[in-house]
Amino acid sequence: MALASKQPDIPPTGGFTDAEEASSGEDMSKYCRRIAEQAKVAARKLAGVSTSIKNDWLDRSADRLQHRVEQVLEANRLDVSQASGMGLSPAAIDRLTLTPDRIRSMADALRSLSKLPDPVGEILGGGMRPNGLQIQKVRVPIGVLLFIYESRPNVTVDAAAIAVKSGNAIILRGGKESLHSSSALVSILEETAKKSGVPEHSLQLICTPDRNAVGELLQLADCIDLVIPRGGESLIRRVVAEARMPVLKHYDGNCHVYVDEHADLEMAIRIVRNAKTQRMGVCNAAESIVVHRSIAEDFLPRMAQDLRAFGIELRGDPNVLQILPDATPATEADWSTEYLGPIVSVRIVDSLEGAVEHIERYSSHHTDAIVTKDIASARRFAQGVDSAAVMINASTRFNDGGELGLGAEIGISTDKLHARGPCGLQELTTYKYIVTGDGHVRE
Amino acid sequence: MALASKQPDIPPTGGFTDAEEASSGEDMSKYCRRIAEQAKVAARKLAGVSTSIKNDWLDRSADRLQHRVEQVLEANRLDVSQASGMGLSPAAIDRLTLTPDRIRSMADALRSLSKLPDPVGEILGGGMRPNGLQIQKVRVPIGVLLFIYESRPNVTVDAAAIAVKSGNAIILRGGKESLHSSSALVSILEETAKKSGVPEHSLQLICTPDRNAVGELLQLADCIDLVIPRGGESLIRRVVAEARMPVLKHYDGNCHVYVDEHADLEMAIRIVRNAKTQRMGVCNAAESIVVHRSIAEDFLPRMAQDLRAFGIELRGDPNVLQILPDATPATEADWSTEYLGPIVSVRIVDSLEGAVEHIERYSSHHTDAIVTKDIASARRFAQGVDSAAVMINASTRFNDGGELGLGAEIGISTDKLHARGPCGLQELTTYKYIVTGDGHVRE
Repeated sequence: MALASKQPDIPPTGGFTDAEEASSGEDMSKYCRRIAEQAKVAARKLAGVSTSIKNDWLDRSADRLQHRVEQVLEANRLDVSQASGMGLSPAAIDRLTLTPDRIRSMADALRSLSKLPDPVGEILGGGMRPNGLQIQKVRVPIGVLLFIYESRPNVTVDAAAIAVKSGNAIILRGGKESLHSSSALVSILEETAKKSGVPEHSLQLICTPDRNAVGELLQLADCIDLVIPRGGESLIRRVVAEARMPVLKHYDGNCHVYVDEHADLEMAIRIVRNAKTQRMGVCNAAESIVVHRSIAEDFLPRMAQDLRAFGIELRGDPNVLQILPDATPATEADWSTEYLGPIVSVRIVDSLEGAVEHIERYSSHHTDAIVTKDIASARRFAQGVDSAAVMINASTRFNDGGELGLGAEIGISTDKLHARGPCGLQELTTYKYIVTGDGHVRE
Repeated sequence: MALASKQPDIPPTGGFTDAEEASSGEDMSKYCRRIAEQAKVAARKLAGVSTSIKNDWLDRSADRLQHRVEQVLEANRLDVSQASGMGLSPAAIDRLTLTPDRIRSMADALRSLSKLPDPVGEILGGGMRPNGLQIQKVRVPIGVLLFIYESRPNVTVDAAAIAVKSGNAIILRGGKESLHSSSALVSILEETAKKSGVPEHSLQLICTPDRNAVGELLQLADCIDLVIPRGGESLIRRVVAEARMPVLKHYDGNCHVYVDEHADLEMAIRIVRNAKTQRMGVCNAAESIVVHRSIAEDFLPRMAQDLRAFGIELRGDPNVLQILPDATPATEADWSTEYLGPIVSVRIVDSLEGAVEHIERYSSHHTDAIVTKDIASARRFAQGVDSAAVMINASTRFNDGGELGLGAEIGISTDKLHARGPCGLQELTTYKYIVTGDGHVRE
């Protein structure tokens, strides 16, 4: 991504005052600090805003989005027209392109979010201590989120909505290729925020293509509580290296399906097919199939035939190649590779423990599945595999906020601390203790 | 802390093979990596160890500690005899010194921990999705903890016990002044681990006074999941700056008591006295008193008289000085200072919102209290103050794992992510999703 200038651009749509001010000579460092401090002030107010105000904002925003389809599409056409000049691939341009249907989906997502329970204020635990002190562990928002993401404009709306519904102020830093679209969308969300009583600066878009903005923001740990990067591995590694505040992330999804000696082979074929081919470019797609030796000769030719019908290339270890001579020999690097495309690595193991060993060594601990009819195998696998989600007789593709019942998600974490797996409204909260006494002092 | 040598010392007690091997020429970097990798292997096994084995280890260790009092005291005498040569203060030497009573307390702590519920395996949520997929969100250990702490030898036993009971392997890095004592204690815990069936290397002590060991360990994010530093601010800042893995910490405890216009002034005197004077050197002691203007003239002279009887110096803003002419003028720096001693800063505010404003600006978000009879004031304060614990009509001193009912704690977090406030067994766990289907694939 080349830099146009050190000064923020003015997006052509929306009355986006921050960008205007920044463009009128404010330097990048001051601009970022101002945005972050505004977010901090907003977060303190937003923590006390009622559920009904937040839901009113979501519903109003959904309506307004649908009334303003033309304005959004116009801004989006500007992005799309510049996209091929920026060297975006046709697939990336497709993800960037909005249609009335896609805008309707965004509005629908806002309305669904409005129906989800507000996590803020939930009593997570507590009780009365023997001395009469009352302990309450209460769910509260995290504070200020910095969300760094790439291209798809709908992510702007989703992320802002999830953040605000969970009581957090959010600073949005999208890709420059979607800046006009995101700016138009944020203008709408800001207008409705004013109408509903959501505090000013609860959501703010960084309106400059300057890459230095990210570096500046990642220093501001006194204002920003959490960074969530969503995009390619190099973006995420950069954020982890530079951030002075916690980062919620996943690097990649090198997901496995293990076909146990006690597997129903028909079920295994269906699950492997779904996990590998249903959508190949996503983090919960399978990249590696691990097969128990005792069923390999029966299973592998059937699996190979099935996958090849979908154009999938198989890369196998020497034992696999004996059964599937047409497969490509796998290198050591294959076991760690997230292909995100029509390739799968295949390995034969001697035991369930061997499968767990392989997965623990190479998995990115995102999602790993076992296919088995044996309850003891399922238990040992679920206990031994230390991944965000372990699937038993189900496709890896189910590790998703919607599918697991979270309702909405801002990303999937492969970190172990704070939140693991899909991150929805609850995962964007923390808690505090509220302790009530009657003049209690400690002896 | 001066370095004796780059090679690890051999502690004179216990058959501590790691130190012996390291001392026989293994370089620091390899030594640290070996310890970390051993911990990772142990953690995988430990995650599946039953509660009864872990509890058996705790009970056995308690017994063994009491049978080996002489051996521990002998090692401790060696530390104590070297301590004044290291320039330790009399207070630090007192903290370092073990007695039969103190060893009995350690044993009692182990027995209490054995009675607490095991957090591992708890089902935190889940249910059946409309498509028949069963979702379970299951509590699991974090993995490998690195615990960095100073002087008090009992912390070695407490930390090892909490870590292992919650299913985590722990690498202990104590101060060099307590190395002989810690080594003797760890030898006992290792012996009993073997007897009870707790996996080898579940707890390991870094047996070198070389400061570089910490730097080396903080790089090993592929093995170590979480670092917990406990000690002075410079230690913690160093760990935060160098660690490649998440850090659970608190920098300081600049705790406030706000005396509201609706306070019971007698109660306020008692709470301020307790919060400030009951134990001054701890993180949940009060460092600053914020007083509503309408009761200041009545309250401050009584509070001053009471605190001065305990030898406390008062530092006030100009409004306070008008009422208490003998108080020292406070500087801007006073508002942010954790005295940990016989000084308190005092400020007058015009409103509850003014108090919240002051606390939000200067507090370290550890523990802040309000004294009030008014339920609306209590609600507004509890909502507005974003600290790990908010006390209503209770002393700040109650923010403690034991007092809040956690049973045991490894530290108090002022971070917002993952865990906030006292960190006990539950806070040393994470979760994973176990999703069970019947051949489910995603459409």
